[in-house]
Formats: sequence, C-alpha cells, structure tokens
Amino acid sequence: MPHLKHDEIMRFGSQSKSYLHQIVADAIKKVTTSSRSALFKQFAALRFLSSTDSPQLSKSLRMVQNLQPVAVKRIQKPWQVPQNSTTLPQLKIYNSLSRQKELFVPNEGRRVKWYICGPTVYDSSHMGHARSYLSLDILRRVFIDYFGYDVQFIMNITDIDDKIIKRARQRYLLTSYLDESKEAPSVEKVITDVLAALELFRFKYNDELDPDKKKMYEVFDSQGAKKCADDLEKSMIAKDQSGIESAKGRLLNEARDVLSEWLDATHGKEIRDHSVFDQLAKTYENEFFADMARLHVLPVDVLTRVSEYVPEVIKYVERIISNGYAYASADGSVYFDTKAFEANPKHYYAKLVPEAYGTEVDGEAMLKNMRESEGELSMGTDRLQAKRSPNDFALWKTSKDGEPFWDSPWGKGRPGWHIECSVMSSAITGSKLDIHAGGFDLKFPHHDNEIAQVEAHYDDPHWVNYFLHCGTLRIAGMKMSKSLKNFITIRQALTQYTARQLRLLFLMHNWTDVLDYSPSTMERALQFEKMTNEFFLVVKDYLRRHYKPDSSQGYQKYQARELQLMEDFSKLKADVHDALCDSVDTRTVVEKIRELIWLGNAYIAEKEKEGTVPNCLLLRNFASYITWLLKMFGAIPQHQEIGFPVDSDDAASCGIASTSKETVVMPYLTALAEFREKVRNIAKEHKIVGILEECDRLRDEVLPELGVRLEDRSAQTCVKLVDRDTLRREAEQKAAAEKAKQAEKDRKAKEKADKEAAKRVPPTEMFKKGDEAAKYSKYDEKGIPTHLASGDEVTKSQRKKLEKMWEAQNKSYQQLTANGVAK
Amino acid sequence: MPHLKHDEIMRFGSQSKSYLHQIVADAIKKVTTSSRSALFKQFAALRFLSSTDSPQLSKSLRMVQNLQPVAVKRIQKPWQVPQNSTTLPQLKIYNSLSRQKELFVPNEGRRVKWYICGPTVYDSSHMGHARSYLSLDILRRVFIDYFGYDVQFIMNITDIDDKIIKRARQRYLLTSYLDESKEAPSVEKVITDVLAALELFRFKYNDELDPDKKKMYEVFDSQGAKKCADDLEKSMIAKDQSGIESAKGRLLNEARDVLSEWLDATHGKEIRDHSVFDQLAKTYENEFFADMARLHVLPVDVLTRVSEYVPEVIKYVERIISNGYAYASADGSVYFDTKAFEANPKHYYAKLVPEAYGTEVDGEAMLKNMRESEGELSMGTDRLQAKRSPNDFALWKTSKDGEPFWDSPWGKGRPGWHIECSVMSSAITGSKLDIHAGGFDLKFPHHDNEIAQVEAHYDDPHWVNYFLHCGTLRIAGMKMSKSLKNFITIRQALTQYTARQLRLLFLMHNWTDVLDYSPSTMERALQFEKMTNEFFLVVKDYLRRHYKPDSSQGYQKYQARELQLMEDFSKLKADVHDALCDSVDTRTVVEKIRELIWLGNAYIAEKEKEGTVPNCLLLRNFASYITWLLKMFGAIPQHQEIGFPVDSDDAASCGIASTSKETVVMPYLTALAEFREKVRNIAKEHKIVGILEECDRLRDEVLPELGVRLEDRSAQTCVKLVDRDTLRREAEQKAAAEKAKQAEKDRKAKEKADKEAAKRVPPTEMFKKGDEAAKYSKYDEKGIPTHLASGDEVTKSQRKKLEKMWEAQNKSYQQLTANGVAK
Repeated sequence: MPHLKHDEIMRFGSQSKSYLHQIVADAIKKVTTSSRSALFKQFAALRFLSSTDSPQLSKSLRMVQNLQPVAVKRIQKPWQVPQNSTTLPQLKIYNSLSRQKELFVPNEGRRVKWYICGPTVYDSSHMGHARSYLSLDILRRVFIDYFGYDVQFIMNITDIDDKIIKRARQRYLLTSYLDESKEAPSVEKVITDVLAALELFRFKYNDELDPDKKKMYEVFDSQGAKKCADDLEKSMIAKDQSGIESAKGRLLNEARDVLSEWLDATHGKEIRDHSVFDQLAKTYENEFFADMARLHVLPVDVLTRVSEYVPEVIKYVERIISNGYAYASADGSVYFDTKAFEANPKHYYAKLVPEAYGTEVDGEAMLKNMRESEGELSMGTDRLQAKRSPNDFALWKTSKDGEPFWDSPWGKGRPGWHIECSVMSSAITGSKLDIHAGGFDLKFPHHDNEIAQVEAHYDDPHWVNYFLHCGTLRIAGMKMSKSLKNFITIRQALTQYTARQLRLLFLMHNWTDVLDYSPSTMERALQFEKMTNEFFLVVKDYLRRHYKPDSSQGYQKYQARELQLMEDFSKLKADVHDALCDSVDTRTVVEKIRELIWLGNAYIAEKEKEGTVPNCLLLRNFASYITWLLKMFGAIPQHQEIGFPVDSDDAASCGIASTSKETVVMPYLTALAEFREKVRNIAKEHKIVGILEECDRLRDEVLPELGVRLEDRSAQTCVKLVDRDTLRREAEQKAAAEKAKQAEKDRKAKEKADKEAAKRVPPTEMFKKGDEAAKYSKYDEKGIPTHLASGDEVTKSQRKKLEKMWEAQNKSYQQLTANGVAK
Repeated sequence: MPHLKHDEIMRFGSQSKSYLHQIVADAIKKVTTSSRSALFKQFAALRFLSSTDSPQLSKSLRMVQNLQPVAVKRIQKPWQVPQNSTTLPQLKIYNSLSRQKELFVPNEGRRVKWYICGPTVYDSSHMGHARSYLSLDILRRVFIDYFGYDVQFIMNITDIDDKIIKRARQRYLLTSYLDESKEAPSVEKVITDVLAALELFRFKYNDELDPDKKKMYEVFDSQGAKKCADDLEKSMIAKDQSGIESAKGRLLNEARDVLSEWLDATHGKEIRDHSVFDQLAKTYENEFFADMARLHVLPVDVLTRVSEYVPEVIKYVERIISNGYAYASADGSVYFDTKAFEANPKHYYAKLVPEAYGTEVDGEAMLKNMRESEGELSMGTDRLQAKRSPNDFALWKTSKDGEPFWDSPWGKGRPGWHIECSVMSSAITGSKLDIHAGGFDLKFPHHDNEIAQVEAHYDDPHWVNYFLHCGTLRIAGMKMSKSLKNFITIRQALTQYTARQLRLLFLMHNWTDVLDYSPSTMERALQFEKMTNEFFLVVKDYLRRHYKPDSSQGYQKYQARELQLMEDFSKLKADVHDALCDSVDTRTVVEKIRELIWLGNAYIAEKEKEGTVPNCLLLRNFASYITWLLKMFGAIPQHQEIGFPVDSDDAASCGIASTSKETVVMPYLTALAEFREKVRNIAKEHKIVGILEECDRLRDEVLPELGVRLEDRSAQTCVKLVDRDTLRREAEQKAAAEKAKQAEKDRKAKEKADKEAAKRVPPTEMFKKGDEAAKYSKYDEKGIPTHLASGDEVTKSQRKKLEKMWEAQNKSYQQLTANGVAK
C-alpha cells in the first residue's frame, strides 16, 4: 500500500465505514515490517477523517500498532486549514471609468501608483480645492493605513498656464499704473482710463456666457462704477479737492478689475520678463502648501512642476506626432488629432464621458468646457481655424508677445494644459498607472484628453485602471461663486473652524457625494466632535482613577455584560471594515463611532446606577479604537516624527508621549484635585465659608482659564483637561443661561408684585389708574365709570360687569386694610 | 439579436476577425429601431475585445450609429478588473499542531481569539518569561497593526498553585521563626533545627532528579552550611559570645532554604489563613505587570485569574465527568480519564506531542514532566494510586491541611493546573479558539491536557486551530538556571540594557528560534540601534535644513537616480511583506531595514560627493518607513493616548512639541500653590487643624514625590520644580540634620540638668559623690577630703582649692535651700 497524499486521504472522508474497514483489513494482510510506520500514519488519518464512532477501526489500528511496538510511534493528527464561513469583503472603489464600484486590484503586488491633479497656482485655494485635496488625503490614508497598500502619491503643480499669465500681467501692470513715477495718476487720466476700460469691459460682458460672471459684471457696471463716477463728478463741480481725491480713490478701487483687464489688453504684450509669471506662481504654490499643512493634508511623495518638465513635454509631443495622433499647425502649435485616434479601433476617445464626443455632443456645456480648457489666451478664432476638428485640443501652444515661451521644434511656445499631467505621470510611473484622481469638474475634457494623450504616446489602450472623482462642494446648498458672495478660501474657513472640525465634516460625507458646507452641516460636525471628546474625557477619568499601567490594577473579571459588549464591539469593527471596503464609506464609519459611544455611555450609566466601577480596560479599548480610526483619517495628529524619541526610555516605557501635555500635567492636577477635595470636606464639616468659596473659585474661575474642568461628583472629583476656549464658551453659555433664569425670576416677581399692588388700590380708584383710566371719561361717586372715553354712556351690561369688579376689589381691599397691610 | 452578457462578450475575444465581421453584418440586416441602442453597445464591446486594427469593424459600427443618430449615444468602454501578475503572499504561521507553517485563517471574519498562558505568580519574572511575553507581544502587534486582524488577546494569571502555596507557607513560617516572640531563637535551638532541616534535606536531595538542583544542594551541603557550622563550633569552644552571635547569623542565612523547607514540612499544615497565599500571589502579579510595562509589552485585553473562576472550574469538571471523560477518586480529587478519551475515535490525546503517550512513552523526561505538572504538593504515591492510569491527570485536587480550598461536590479542594486555562479560555471565547500560545516548555503535558479537557468538555474534537510555541532562551549558550548562577530576572536585565535594546535582540531572532542572551548578541542589537539612530539623525538634519512643511520647499525633481531609489524602496517593502507573511520573520525584516539604510547612506554619500543636496523627502520616506516598522514592533513608543490632543490645533499641525516641562506645568502648580495658601490662611485664622495638616502633607509628602518643592515664605509660597531624587535626598538630609540638632539639644539639656543637679548637693556630700568619690579615701567633719584615694594626705595647695570649692558650693546651696528648691 503506497504512501497516500493529503488529497487522497481527504477523499476517504466521504467513504462509508465498511469501505474504510475493508481497506484496513486488506492493509493488515499485506503488511511488511518496512511499511508499518507509513501504514500507521495512514490509519491515523483514516480514523480522523472517518470522524465517526468506530471501535472496529480503532481495534484494527491497535493491531497494526502491536505488530512492532518499538518501531511504531504515534504521529500527529493531520491538520486542516480552518473554514472561514464569513465572506471577507474586499476593497471596492467607485470607478469613473465604469461608473460603478469595482474590486480594487493594483497592477503589481501591493504597490499603488497614484497620480492626482494639483492646483493651477494663480490665486488662493478655496473650499472647492479643500473638497478635492482633503477628500483625497482621507482616501490615501485609508489605502495606506487601513488596507496596507504601498502608495506612491504623485501630484503636479500647474505653474505654466494662461490664467497665471493673465493674472500676473494684470497684477504687474496695475501695480505699475498706480505706482506711476511714485505719483498717483491724475484725476483726468483716471477718468479717461476707467472710461476706456469700461468700454472694453462692456464689449466683453456681452460675450460672457457664464450667468454668474454676467451678473457680477452687471452689478458692478450699474452700481459700483456708476456711483463712484457720480461722486467724482459732483466733487469736481463743487471743486471739493479732498472730495475729489477720495472719490478718485474709491473709483480706482471699484474699477480695479476692469482697469487690470484694460491695462492687460493694451500693455500685456509688452511684458517679457519670465519672473513676473514665476513669482506669482511661486507665491500661490507656497500658499497652497501652507493651506494643505493647516488642513493636515499629508505631504505628497513626489511633486512635479510643469516648469521643470518642458523638455519632457516636447519629447512626448514628438512621439504622439510620430505615432500619427497629432499634427503641428502653421502658427507653431501642435494639436491632438481626435479623429485619427478614434479611427484606430484599439483606441477610444473620451473613456470617462463618451457622451461628450461624436456627432451628438451633449449640448452647450460640453462645448464651453472644451473651449475653456484650451486656456483664456488660446481660445481665439485663429486657433480654432488651425484645428482640423473642433474636438482637437492643443498639446503645444505657440506663445504670443507677453506670454512666456520655451524653444521647441515648432518654434517658441509652451505646453498645453492637458499634456502636463500625461507627461509628468508617465515620467514618474511609466506607462501604467493604478489610480488617477481629481475633482469632478476635471472629468471632461481634461482627464479624457489626458487618457487619450498617454494612450496615443504609448500607442497602448491600457493606461489607468481606476479614475476617482471627488464630489462637488456646495455652500449652504448653492454653487460657490464670487458673484453669490459665498466664495470661501481655505484660510477664511480656518478662522471659523479648526482643521479637525472641517475634516470631520468631510468624513461625514462620502468622497463621491455632494458636500454642503454650511452652518448647519458644520453644527453636526461640531456636535460629533463634542460627543466624542466627552466620551474620551470620561474614559480617561475612569482610567486615571482605576487603572495603573504598571500593576494589575484595573483588570476586572469579564461578566456576561462585558462579554456581550466585547461581542458588540467586534461586530461593530467588522461593520467598519465592511464600510471601508464599500468604496471607503466614511459616513457609515462615523455612524459606527457614534454607536460605539452610545454603547459605552449606556454601560457607564448602568454601572454608575449600580454603584459599581465599569470595566475601565474595556472602555479604554473602545476609546483607543475610536482614537485609532480618527488618527487613521487624519482627524487626530499621528505623531509622524522620525526616529527614536529623545526622552528617557523610562518615560517611554509608560507610553508617555513627550509631546502630550496631558500626561505631563495630569499628576499635578490629580494632586490638586485630591487636596481640594480633602480641604473641602473638612471645611464643609466645620462650615468654613471662606474656604468653600475658595474651592468654588478654583473650580469655576482659576482652573477653566487653564483649560481644566473639575467636576464635583458624588463619589469623587473628576478632572478633565480640555481646551480653554471650549471652557470659556461653556462658562459664557452657563452665564447666559443663568441670566435668562434670573430674568424669568425677575419677571415673575414683578408680575406677582403688580398683582399685589393692584389689590392695594381702593375700589374708588381702581378705574382711574393705569390702563383703565384711558378707557373712561366720567365716574359716579363710588368711582364706577358712567361714560366711556368716547363720551358714550356705559351700557347696562357693561355697568353690571364693572359693578361686579368693584365689589370684588372692595372685598379684597377691606380685608387688606383690616390686616393693616394696605398703604 | 439578444442582449449579450459579459461572459458572452468575453468569448468574442478569441474569435477570428472574419467571424466578428459576419456577426456585425448579420446584426445590421436584422436591426430594428428598438434594438439599435443595445446593438451599438454590443458592437462597442466587440470592437474593444477584438483589440485588433479592424477598419471594417469600425465602419460597420458607424453604419449602425448612422441608422438613427439621435437615439444612439456613445457609451463607456466595458471595464475589466486588472490582472495582478504578482502572487500576493498571505500570512502563514508555524503551527505546533502540524509542525509546519500553515496559512492563517481565523474562524470568523477578521476576528482572532487568542489565548496565552500567563505566569504562575510565586516569584519574580525572569528572562525566560521575557522570551515568551515579549515575543508574543511582537506577534500580537504584527497581527493587529500589520495584518489588520481584530485580535482579542486573553491571558490568565495562575494565582492558585502548589508552588504559590509552598512558597507562601515557607516565607510566612521563616519570618515567624526568625521573629519568634520578638527575640531571636537561641543558639542551641538554631543548631538543633538546622540539623533537623539538613536531615530532611539530605533525604530529599537523594530523591532529586534535576541535575541543576542536585548540584545546588550539594554545593550548599558541603560548603555553605558546613563552614557556618564549623565557625559556630569554634566560637562556642572559645566561649566568644560575639563570635557565636555572628556565626549563628551566618548559619541562619545560609540555611534559609533548608530551614524553610523543614519549617514547612513540620508546620506547613498549621496555616489556615488564605491571605497568606493571596498576598504572595498579588505581590508577584503586580511585579509581573510592572515588568511587562517596563518591557513595553502591551496590556492584554482580558485578564483571567484562576481565583476568580473556581465556580466555573467546578461546573466544567462536572461536565467532563458527565461526558464520561473523568472520574472522582475516593480522596475527593477528580482525574481526567485519558483511556476513555482515547477510546472514542473522534478524540485524540496529545495532539501536540503524540509521541509522549501510549505504550512507548518517550523516556524519562516526559514522565518527569507529567509527574511535575501535577504540582509539588500533589505528586505523592497516594495520589498516584488514586489514578486509574499513570497518564491520567488531576482536574480537581483535594486540599490537605495547610492548603487553600474551595467547597465542591467532591469535598474541599482546588483546581488542577491544566484545567484553569481550559475553563478560562472557554469562559471568554466559547468553544472555538483561533490561537493558543505559550512557551515551548508548556507543550506537554500542559497544552496537550488543556486541549483534551476542552474537547472532552464540549465533546467536540475541534477547539484550537493554531498553537504557537515560542523558542527557548539560552544565556550565553547555556540553559538558564540558578545553579549555573546565570539566572537573570527581567529587572536585572533592564539595569544593563534598555527595553528597546532587548526588543531589538528579540526582533533579530525569529520567535520560534532559540534566543541566546549574551554580551555578544546584545552587542549586535546595540550596533543596529546605533546605525539606525545615526541614519535618523542625518535625515532629520537634512530635513531641518532643506524642508519646510508649510511651503513647497524641499520638493525636488525626481531624476533617474531618485526614480531608481523609489523602485528599490518599493521592492524592499514587498520583501518586508513577504518576510512578515513567512511566519512573522522579523529577523529578515531587520536585515531589510539594514539594507534600506545602506541604500540611503550610499545615496547621501553620492550626493555629498557631487556637492548637491539629496532629495530630502525621499530620505524622509525611508526614515518614516523604518520608524513605522519599529513602532509597529513596539521598539518605538506608539503614542497610544486616547482622544484629541489637548494642545491647540495649530501647534499640533506643525508637529511642534510643547516646550519644556516647566513651562507646561508651572501655571497649574501656581494655581495649586495659591489655592493652598489662601486655604491655609483661612484655616490658621479658624484654627482648623485638619486642613493645616493637609497643607503640610501636600508640601512634605505629595508634592516632593512629583518633584515639586513648595516653600512657605512670609510673603508668598514659592514653587520649585526639581527632580524627584534630588527632593528625596533633600528630605533625607533635612531629617538627618534635624536628628543631629535634636541630639545636640538633648546633650545641652542634659549638661544643664547635670549642672543644676550638682548645685543641689549639700557641701558636706559634694566630694563623696560621682566621679569625685573615686578620688579620695578620707574626709573631715565638713566633708572636705583629707586623704587621696592612694592613701596620701592632700597637699596644702590642694586643701586650699578644695576649701574654696566647698565655700562656693555652700553658698549656692544655702541660696537654694532658702528658696526652698533643694530637696
């Protein structure tokens, strides 16, 4: 009987008992000394696999064993890989290339080559930028820290672009204009120039398609400039010199944009110094990185600037031309040949938005997008005519006067917008990319053109596997725009909210969803932050009191309640895993955190009611897990310092971060709280008011200023270290609430006093005072009205009512006087 | 033509072009308006899948498109999941149940129920403990932080055990013996007792099998005790009392162990107080946790103490009996019935070490192991006779006098050793466990018996899937033992090396390997630490000089060299992944870290030679990755605080560590000092002693422990933050100074009192008292000496002096008697 392999043994599992017995019996007959050990091994396996009560089999086994007791040794039972009945979810991610969630598989091992479109640095970054870069930062962190991918995160900076050229020229020319020979331009010159500028401006706005821009221009034209011009006219007529100067200043300020536009149109071509463009780009590039650092967006691994890749762009374009997918025009530009590309069946233009191409392009919007993406300075009819098809787009643009340029085989020019990303991602990652990401608005034509360019360059239809597009941003339900006056820069947002609060808002929305930035959505983020923080503080307080890390104190026996919580906790962690696998659904994760806090708080409340201490270490595990998740998402800083900590090993042994203020300060605060408590108890006993007042003052005034909240609980004082501003806000809220309470008390007291005072009025005066007096004009001898203010006599029924009231007042008044209370 | 499914479309990929054309042609013929859109979709798919240059197919496609241009829209190309050609390794772990590396699959989702055998708390933990607990800590961290498992880590504390009972009784009895009626035992008693003890001891050591113990006993018997006894004999012959006392002391010290043994043998049974046992266990339990904290071993999730689970043990044993796998003996013990268990074919005894059971047990060692695992107090022949088979082992042990006990259906007794772990792991994790781990020495019989018990309890042969056993520890190549004088406690090791250095040594050895702790292996760990630290410092220096996190400074263009380094880095990360998948091979990971540092240093050297700045951010990525790995392994503290950091968001964003401890702590201390001062003043006013005492206690006891010196000065209390040891030394010095001051005061007081007393002596007595009396032999009637002690007459000049003294004394004595003071 030959040696059986594992899968042969496996097959026995499905056999009948008698069959197995037969095998054993046969084997015993044939047995030779040399094969006994192997035989025994097989029998052990058979016995295990038959897995039934089978004394006969056991007996046979012993028979073999007894043939030569010394030579045969017992061996291990065969081991089987456990069956995991749970279907383990794997990461799926929403892919714009298929418009659905797809299983994420990188090209090579665990390595993920990931390119994102960086900013065009011509202005300050706004919340729309935050929408993309913060969301992508969260995604990146989850890919690395949760899913363990080896991510290479590459971003470009567009520092050559028509917008930069124009903005730089305008800014430079306006500064020069206002600074002219260090003297301001004369009133007459200003008026002439502004008028000329407005002329140009009206001409432009007639052409404007964007309703936002149109509206903005209209408002300015009819109100801003007009009012200033009127003021100036008035002052000039009045020969009011200071009035003239101030009106001139206001006019210049109002007309800033139109003047810049006009100056650029008239003098832009004269600018030849590249540094004018470079400086503007560098300024906003730095500002962008500062903003990202403030938002705690992780630095990228590789940054590529277009200005550093011009030679690579030229080589790339040459290759596309030689592959037959681009052509140079007579003016020295190079265009992508969409028809030639589409004609090759292995290629496919506009993979992301195929609807945008072909004979039935989807309306005006797409056309406008396509036109605008060519650049403000590159949309002229001359350029349009140079193209073989309106769908073609510039790879290389010839530079006119006043535009920066580089030498190329096609003359002096500069890279087109779309080609940059194709060139730079190829330069870093080669011909294959796992993920490309950017804002929703870049889908078409930018990203579709990028794809076409790389595929045309490598003549290979497989470049990027996953295209991720972040959802858009709304400001209180509206599109963000300067004309709606709801345009918010990242810096402005950070004056109102912390980076953490903003990030929590982002986490509460999935990255593909529309994100609404508004006081009410921020309120929800703040509430979540507060609830989470309160939970952390309560848990830390319990740990301080009942857990010592360097002893076994705090390890309590797990009873049924704790075992149940442990189960719930595990279930919840599995839910979080599912949510993250489901295209990184952070919204659900936030909900799960909320659930976990509910679980924890309910448990604490229950234990407090019972008068027992909750299992601190279980609560610590809850809080640690939440902390870990928030760290992973970047909502809590991760201490990413490099290397070994500087502090002594001993401090480190207790897990103390050198940076954590809390660990440093807490022992002193505990000493303070304990001392105060003892003193307070003794003072209570002896009724020493002065000391009790000091105790309150310490709690209510001194410590809150230091960011410490003391809570006198029945059992023990609870110490919480929180942020000082929060405490201040709390104190203010408390004060306001007390004030309102006092006001209500005062109001009630006054009401009561008024009522009492009314009782003290003699009945003869009761209709002659206050509001009553205005109603009537004549009274009888008892003081009961006979005529109304109108002069009409009171009716009989009125008279009856008044008499009744008089009697009632008379009665209560008599009582009061009898008691000697009334005046 | 019906709608095609994805897999149908897939099949077209393998068809010839002409076949595909035919399909298209047929389709065009049959087309109806309603099916045009679906048809187009399929053609697009076909075109994509044919993936060849096929103008005919394109043409056909356009034909369809042209049939009704408005109705047909372009749609997205079908997307396919990328093919990852890399075979992704999965975690395999060395499993003692199959003696090979096995794919790790948990029973349920990502959840891992993991039980480890904790210490028996009867002595200080030694490096052998470190070998298990530190190695398992590393494994646990890798499972959680690298592989993302949701691990529930459970450990027991064996706080009921024969070793604890014996050690506690001995310690208690010896203390009482030496403390006997607050007087040391007489020499005669000591000699008699030590002789009796030695007698018992010789008897025992004849039986001893362990060569280490035997050797130790021999050395003691022939040298230690003998020498002391000889000395004592000599001193007694010489009647040298102090010699006797000191020899007695030395003998008691040398005979400490044998005396303890003898005292226990003679009086152990008299101990009835459970707290004797509990206190010893609690002391070493706390010491164990303190040691673990020092080694940066993470706290376990659930701790189970045997003493908390006795009712559960009883229920568990009852169940095993009712399942037919255990029996109660006449003396009130319960034994596991190995034969009954083995007789059921679904069960299998000794799954880990099957060689140890059956007719051919593997020699003396196994037998000895089996016998010893029953406990020192439970190995008697009476117990052996109660067993049906020598392989049977105790589930419940009847308690004799002097042993702690709990009531049970079998009488007063306590749990056996093996049953504890079965009961407690079942109590927390139920009938299925993913991982069980412990030291190599626990394999048989402890773990094999544990398995048998749980399987007998649930009558189910599937309990634990993976059994991990840590490799053994050697001290410079030798077995660690007290007799070889190379027994090292964790505390001792930590006085020589830091926790990090020890952990690095462990990381340099795989967890299943033999680990040699010696100066030379430690030297390698120290070298690795130094090399790594140097690399960190160099990278940090570059970053400080060339990188600003809140600007774009530091982002340099990646040239070919940097791209190559990025590739190498990725490759290395994949290697690390492979190593960790290969049964957590940390040794290889350490080698890979070394390689990465070589790569980085070579790059730096190259750039320095070129005179250019290396790409700091690439170097930062190297250093961050190493830091991350070392954090994951626990070699760098992970900042595991809970919750949001207290410092303001801004500081955190820049990663700034708050400045010195002093600046952080001082505001709180000032608040404390001011509060105390106010309270103290009010308390002084009202004479509230309790509060004043608290104020002193805070100053003299509480704050010095925290390194704070409060000084009550007249104007204000002064707060000083100093180092705690300095304060302690100061306190000692202060106490010593006060003691000296008091001694001087006492001396002066005595002097004064003596003087006063002297005055009260009548002149007639003044030369007859104290020291004076010895000087003279005869006096005259006034009491003035006439003869010296030698018998010589006093000289005239002497006589004059004496008379003068007599007169002076007479004068002051007369005064005193006049005032009525003298007696």
